[in-house]
Amino acid sequence: MTDIITASMVVIGDEILSGRTKDRNIGHLADMMTAVGIDMKEVRIVGDDEEDIAAAVNALRARWDYVFTTGGIGPTHDDITADSVSRAFGVKCEYDRRAYDMLKRHFAARNMEFTEARKRMARMPVGAVHIDNPISIAPGFTIGNVHVMAGVPAIFQAMLDNVIPTLRTGTKLLSVTVHCPFGEGTIGDGLAAIQKAHPDTIIGSYPKYRDGSFWTELVVRARDGAKLDAARAAVQAMVDEIAARAA
Amino acid sequence: MTDIITASMVVIGDEILSGRTKDRNIGHLADMMTAVGIDMKEVRIVGDDEEDIAAAVNALRARWDYVFTTGGIGPTHDDITADSVSRAFGVKCEYDRRAYDMLKRHFAARNMEFTEARKRMARMPVGAVHIDNPISIAPGFTIGNVHVMAGVPAIFQAMLDNVIPTLRTGTKLLSVTVHCPFGEGTIGDGLAAIQKAHPDTIIGSYPKYRDGSFWTELVVRARDGAKLDAARAAVQAMVDEIAARAA
Repeated sequence: MTDIITASMVVIGDEILSGRTKDRNIGHLADMMTAVGIDMKEVRIVGDDEEDIAAAVNALRARWDYVFTTGGIGPTHDDITADSVSRAFGVKCEYDRRAYDMLKRHFAARNMEFTEARKRMARMPVGAVHIDNPISIAPGFTIGNVHVMAGVPAIFQAMLDNVIPTLRTGTKLLSVTVHCPFGEGTIGDGLAAIQKAHPDTIIGSYPKYRDGSFWTELVVRARDGAKLDAARAAVQAMVDEIAARAA
Repeated sequence: MTDIITASMVVIGDEILSGRTKDRNIGHLADMMTAVGIDMKEVRIVGDDEEDIAAAVNALRARWDYVFTTGGIGPTHDDITADSVSRAFGVKCEYDRRAYDMLKRHFAARNMEFTEARKRMARMPVGAVHIDNPISIAPGFTIGNVHVMAGVPAIFQAMLDNVIPTLRTGTKLLSVTVHCPFGEGTIGDGLAAIQKAHPDTIIGSYPKYRDGSFWTELVVRARDGAKLDAARAAVQAMVDEIAARAA
């Protein structure tokens, strides 16, 4: 029996859309979800706009099992994720007592002023649960099926490590790669036939190009090991046959 | 007078969502749009599903001036972008005569069979206009305000170079960065006040973290050079004042 659990992501920030910052969190979340058997199904990147963030969160949380957000939970005026997620859930965004006290102690211990800006980091939707931040203290939070995390990759990754043990995970999707020294045009027909004959597998074809040469990586995915093996063998046989003809 | 032109992007492919392939096209498109004065407003990453691709294309083309898609235009069974975009526009997906002849000649000249799979690359929505592909011949296409391009970065970039001269471009958004040796908490209050005093600028704060140290890059953006300078000077003065107090 297979159990399919799905995830999605909202990446928040004008700096990603302008190209100034290159996202490094999408690939990391995708890798981690695949590793624990959760299927990433959709990602949206939106700017620093409360209505747009709330709309993206609401669209994804209704459709997929989990939503992860990155970005916009710092102390500055353009950090509006807590307000936006509160709006999405129709709840108030308030200072969280425990986060407030934790940050207050943290800054006091460093002889740093607990400014209005820093206090902003203690704000979250009423009813949210903390996601611990071992690096810079200010917590992320979970509300419903939405996990709100930092955009700075080191902090995002640390927060995600804390969230993953709390997730329901699915039957892991197994995958195996068959290297194919030919371009997609050569193997497209054969691959389509193999996909049709192995309906419980997902066969993907990833064209590669470098310095004037094309090759293809053929990836077979399945939740059942025997079915994976059968499809992999069929793909390998096809590649071998084409190679023999070409030789 | 400023003229604001907006863009959006649909990245297509299960391999991006599984983490197997790391996207390199979002950052490139974002950089290029910023360079020519077009605002990227939204990106969606969706899997190889015709209905999902069509829905994303329709949502974005209704809202933003341009949509760029990457991925899913090769010769294999999982390349379904042409069908999906045709569905989004409610038109038929057929062999394009000129693309078909071009590909036929291309493969004949190389003594390669013009397989059913390769023929797939000549399919596009009726009424679409080619986007030339100087690398592997098979064209992308434009229909309405949607530009459909390859996922392989070298080919995507070459196609984009052909599309950019056809776009209406906006008044370029100017930007300047003020380096700030302090974390966001230190400058959040001051920055919020500066943003309020300079409403025609967009002031962003980008926290950086490495090896236990935090710093911040403060980016001021505006379409008007004098307004940019005024806001930049205010931000720099704030940073200098904090540094003087800390010294």
